[in-house]
Amino acid sequence: MSVDRTKLRWNGWGWAAHKDELGDREAVWTWLAGELGMPSLLATPARPLEELSLPAPALYVEDRKALDDIVGADRVHDDNYERAFHALGRSYYDLLRLRAGDLSLAPDAVVYPRGTEEVLAVLVLAAERGIAVIPYGGGTSAVGGVSATRGALYSAITLDLSAMDRLIEVDPVSVTATAEAGITGPELEKALQAKGFTLGHYPQSFEFSTLGGWIAHRGAGQGSNRYGRAEDWLVGAKLATPRGLLVTGDFPASAAGPQLKDLVLGSEGVFGIITEATVRVRALPAASDYRGYLFRDFDSGAAAIRTAMQEGVAAAMLRLSDAEKTRFTRRYDGIGKRRSLARRLAELYVKLRGFDNKASALIAGFEGGATAVAHGQKQFGAIARRFGALPLGRGMGEHWRRTRFKAPYLRDPMMDRGLGFDTLETAAIWSKLGALHAATRAALEAAILKTVPREGARGIVMCHIGHSTADGASLCFTTIFPRSLDGDIAQWKTIKQAASEAIVANGGTISHHHGVGEDHLPWLAQEKGALGIEVLRAVKQALDPAGVLNPGKLLPR
Amino acid sequence: MSVDRTKLRWNGWGWAAHKDELGDREAVWTWLAGELGMPSLLATPARPLEELSLPAPALYVEDRKALDDIVGADRVHDDNYERAFHALGRSYYDLLRLRAGDLSLAPDAVVYPRGTEEVLAVLVLAAERGIAVIPYGGGTSAVGGVSATRGALYSAITLDLSAMDRLIEVDPVSVTATAEAGITGPELEKALQAKGFTLGHYPQSFEFSTLGGWIAHRGAGQGSNRYGRAEDWLVGAKLATPRGLLVTGDFPASAAGPQLKDLVLGSEGVFGIITEATVRVRALPAASDYRGYLFRDFDSGAAAIRTAMQEGVAAAMLRLSDAEKTRFTRRYDGIGKRRSLARRLAELYVKLRGFDNKASALIAGFEGGATAVAHGQKQFGAIARRFGALPLGRGMGEHWRRTRFKAPYLRDPMMDRGLGFDTLETAAIWSKLGALHAATRAALEAAILKTVPREGARGIVMCHIGHSTADGASLCFTTIFPRSLDGDIAQWKTIKQAASEAIVANGGTISHHHGVGEDHLPWLAQEKGALGIEVLRAVKQALDPAGVLNPGKLLPR
Repeated sequence: MSVDRTKLRWNGWGWAAHKDELGDREAVWTWLAGELGMPSLLATPARPLEELSLPAPALYVEDRKALDDIVGADRVHDDNYERAFHALGRSYYDLLRLRAGDLSLAPDAVVYPRGTEEVLAVLVLAAERGIAVIPYGGGTSAVGGVSATRGALYSAITLDLSAMDRLIEVDPVSVTATAEAGITGPELEKALQAKGFTLGHYPQSFEFSTLGGWIAHRGAGQGSNRYGRAEDWLVGAKLATPRGLLVTGDFPASAAGPQLKDLVLGSEGVFGIITEATVRVRALPAASDYRGYLFRDFDSGAAAIRTAMQEGVAAAMLRLSDAEKTRFTRRYDGIGKRRSLARRLAELYVKLRGFDNKASALIAGFEGGATAVAHGQKQFGAIARRFGALPLGRGMGEHWRRTRFKAPYLRDPMMDRGLGFDTLETAAIWSKLGALHAATRAALEAAILKTVPREGARGIVMCHIGHSTADGASLCFTTIFPRSLDGDIAQWKTIKQAASEAIVANGGTISHHHGVGEDHLPWLAQEKGALGIEVLRAVKQALDPAGVLNPGKLLPR
Repeated sequence: MSVDRTKLRWNGWGWAAHKDELGDREAVWTWLAGELGMPSLLATPARPLEELSLPAPALYVEDRKALDDIVGADRVHDDNYERAFHALGRSYYDLLRLRAGDLSLAPDAVVYPRGTEEVLAVLVLAAERGIAVIPYGGGTSAVGGVSATRGALYSAITLDLSAMDRLIEVDPVSVTATAEAGITGPELEKALQAKGFTLGHYPQSFEFSTLGGWIAHRGAGQGSNRYGRAEDWLVGAKLATPRGLLVTGDFPASAAGPQLKDLVLGSEGVFGIITEATVRVRALPAASDYRGYLFRDFDSGAAAIRTAMQEGVAAAMLRLSDAEKTRFTRRYDGIGKRRSLARRLAELYVKLRGFDNKASALIAGFEGGATAVAHGQKQFGAIARRFGALPLGRGMGEHWRRTRFKAPYLRDPMMDRGLGFDTLETAAIWSKLGALHAATRAALEAAILKTVPREGARGIVMCHIGHSTADGASLCFTTIFPRSLDGDIAQWKTIKQAASEAIVANGGTISHHHGVGEDHLPWLAQEKGALGIEVLRAVKQALDPAGVLNPGKLLPR
């Protein structure tokens, strides 16, 4: 298996050896405390694994033996580290529990199958014996998608697909590639790029998340405007279910009834386990150009994105921070740095041009042939000017690209200092987006104010548009707030509920690219309708009548 | 209702008043007879409605009364014309039966609801009383999608949606439009274009087919390379079912589990009746440019399309006829016309350049802003040259556009002369397309040879690529053949079976844009797998437990 689980944090983000960029920068903490209205920040370290006790594995000896027989005893693990590592995903709610030492959801065993046949055999066994099976790719779910919940079943095992990490085939004529579902972003891109191709799917979890995971939760990479979402690039998949293997076709398009791959997309391990997928790839782009623009406000930036998408400008990414995010990022990046004369002059110029604290920064990224990239950037530049923006050059774009996978690493040190750090996202059509942005922001701010540990404290709420189409766009919110240390799970639930209710009430989807998991479940029926949920249940019943697959996700009880 | 059913042919294509372009052109018939190896063609007129007897309407008086109460008695029709008109769709198999006077599938009544509420009420009634309900848009199904089959139910009624033809709303900010499902192509485009927008969905059935029908069978218009297929432009829909209304969201994208609209797409009236839909539209293009190219053979033309799609050339349409279709079209168009000196010189030039009877014609269409159109045509022109093509200029493109909806009108006069005229289509990824083309062509030719009425007779088999993406393309076959007059249904079945088996065996989908209906049903399980069919059945069971919706379509018994 290619990503060695022992080199990762069992209760935080990413590589254990990753250098904490915040830990010793007291100037950052002092500034942050001030921003949050806190006199100082507390040390709130996570509990070490050695201190914790896990529930004894519930798996019956004969069931364990049967598992060993299927995959080999060396591929069934039940040591504390493996069980703790796989207990939950990496949502803020997950981390609250892991850091507090709540391992009540630890699976009884972690199984590392080597192929579709082994997955099928495990599923047949699980259905027979009544064992919950939690499929696990990179384990980076931000919505409780891999919690080892067992529901009413006597045992839960996690199927970690990291040993299924082969690029099986590239079809250079059809420009498609077939790979095992457990392949991670870096492994897949390395193998594809060696042949001159790319999938171009770069979510923030890219380092660890997997092809199967991207499909299972209908993900979108940061370059989705060019490379598409999972549903755009998926050609076909193999879905292992307790009732056998579902193989969807490999057609470029088909009118032969509803397409089964559309039920694999977003199935979150509840209908089956994706074991292989064929995807549309592209020739590796010859050129790329990411550069910054400053808009007077969020609305004019959003209007520029909308115009660009509706006029067919072929951007890879148009990422617009709102005023609060723009301001926060600028100040955070500037902490402890001397401002050069050039920078000070630039800031003066911006101010003289009438940009104030509503100013919103945008990064426009283009990839492809050199001519097309230059043409696209020129087209977007003209639109940006039309909406009153100032060009900021490539430095900002390049900085973003270099640091694009770093943000999740900031959460652990923040949580070590009594801070909450969460993210949520939605999407709506353009005519609803402004109201959705305002309402969700207001709901987050109010809920944080209601739950902060002391008077005068407050949260920071930031938002950006990350993905856009001709008809609408996504909004991604990041919140930083002082934790209510004697009730931080209740605090999270209060904030989550307020935001989710605002989203649903204002025409947003409960998730644009994170998925449903356990965290978004309470709002799904409002989005799908009772009849819609019944349809999904019917599909579940057809594929997993024993109900052993990933209990508690996607389908309301 | 906007399309007056009484002005249409009940047993053929389109307007009754349409001028038959073939009827009196004896030169065409003589030439065609020669091509088909027939000494002459017979007169085989259709039986007039007045001669025919229909089964007595089976609908119980109290059920008829209940229907009248829902929609009003003036909106329930059971005269012979209405029942005959709605008995079947417009596939070749349908026309064989209609022309022979087989009206055994005539519905007991035709109901014209005026809105979603009436449709829902009819469905509740139908489920209670056990009446089959066949949704009917334009009735142009080419695959038996609207046959008034009742299965084991005592009665069948057709729900003709032509009174539900309003454009409800245009959202100019999100560039989406919402309309009732029964709106026809011309009505929808007229209403949209009056506001500066277009959906750009122009299937060959455009004059009569409806928004709901396009979604229900996952259709594609001729400009699908630019405007997309139904699944590309559908934002959300209302699906009336016997269990209530399913309303899918209006999100630009969502990761909230599988998207219910993907089950509406291709549902063929089996899961519910689409009553409204919101679709992505576009600004009306300022410019368009359709022009012809001649390739040395089909393979080099296909390679040019593939290259263009993989290099991101933004064509609206790249339509490549194979050698047989190119030759047939050229000769057909030339019948009875004196060839000008210019034309003869042009033909001589083409011959001198080494183009022989393998030459394949392509029409490349671009739409959009004037600059983008010119740029795209230039890009495609360069690719075409790279693959050895000769540019043929705009005349050919403009001719195609003028006559694009005429082909279906040729079928009736051919059937009047003892000829069969059928069409079928498929799609595959590029690496399988060449073999799929050869195998399907061979199967069609062999099956026709086996079923022609006399020795020496043969069929004409033509094919074109109509729709393409980076990973693959569709193949559309047209066949003309001498009918085996004492068994022309058996003949059709033999030919259909041979072609379908070749398609399935060579990696093609059983339909790229016509749908499944009744005609493709025997091959669906091979494409979807037994487990896949069970999933679709489970959805059916959830939405239509009484099984009253469009019996016999989509789901194998």
